[in-house]
Amino acid sequence: MPHINLPAEFPGISSGFVFRPETAKPMRELAHILLHEPNSLTPGERELIATYVSSRNCTTFCELSHGAAAEAHLGDPALVKQVKTDFAQADITPKLKALLVIAGKVQQDGKLVTAADVEAARKQGATDLEIHDTVLIAAAFSMYNRYVDGLGTWQPTDPAMYAQMGQHLADMGYREPSIRQPATV
Amino acid sequence: MPHINLPAEFPGISSGFVFRPETAKPMRELAHILLHEPNSLTPGERELIATYVSSRNCTTFCELSHGAAAEAHLGDPALVKQVKTDFAQADITPKLKALLVIAGKVQQDGKLVTAADVEAARKQGATDLEIHDTVLIAAAFSMYNRYVDGLGTWQPTDPAMYAQMGQHLADMGYREPSIRQPATV
Repeated sequence: MPHINLPAEFPGISSGFVFRPETAKPMRELAHILLHEPNSLTPGERELIATYVSSRNCTTFCELSHGAAAEAHLGDPALVKQVKTDFAQADITPKLKALLVIAGKVQQDGKLVTAADVEAARKQGATDLEIHDTVLIAAAFSMYNRYVDGLGTWQPTDPAMYAQMGQHLADMGYREPSIRQPATV
Repeated sequence: MPHINLPAEFPGISSGFVFRPETAKPMRELAHILLHEPNSLTPGERELIATYVSSRNCTTFCELSHGAAAEAHLGDPALVKQVKTDFAQADITPKLKALLVIAGKVQQDGKLVTAADVEAARKQGATDLEIHDTVLIAAAFSMYNRYVDGLGTWQPTDPAMYAQMGQHLADMGYREPSIRQPATV
């Protein structure tokens, strides 16, 4: 039950975005740049970072929607699960593993990131821009997750809904709403 | 010492914004809407919420810059300190006290916000929009704080620098950089 009068038929962050379109616009834009625009980290890799942070924050809506977007990009549901459970054993690049270490620290507290963490990522080929964007993805999902949870939004668990949403996000990105016809959800 | 090659003469979040102008734009826009645009919560009250969250996250740059903006709006440095130390005893409205309870929970984890917290704010006259914006200010500063700390930015402590910055933020808001001439800082 949402804490305020959000449109009941929209799940998760969509309900906050419909309630307050003024703030939705820059929040969508930031996600679009970080997760969807061309980057030396693939969209699938960036969605894995977003999924990992949301999983650690136990925010169901974000974990499942970005997990579904990662699946749509990578075509490997087991990999997404493995990254959430124990990314050190996952079939991802050593660079992404080093970046996930940084993301996990930012999720707790940015001050936990050490020069050694950053050096380890650099040794695996990470650029300054990739390190910057990893820090900001983890920081931004510390916002999105708290927004979704703090408003008490409706967070469904139907996998079919997330599969559809994830495909839309993977194809179109974040500038436009992924859920336009809430009655069909 | 910043973790990546940020422009050394810009403090705090400014250095990240100069490094990555694409993401700076929506991050500035969101802060401008939340803290500076007309709202039934005064800009001073909203800066107090931002200062309180940043103080709890121990992010010096954000705590001191938004504290200085709150001072510029409210003209009362002791009040800003009191809100950070023990807002229950501060000379602020009962409504703002109830909203700070919500902000403090969102700073930890959005799931900690209860229906009773929201009902308490409503009893003091808080509207749905005020509750929404309080949740989002606290969530957004969970991002800004982690971004500033996670990049290892330079966070000076010179009060004169923050007083100047706070006055600029109070007057002009967040769309344009508050530090244009870093050599004078």
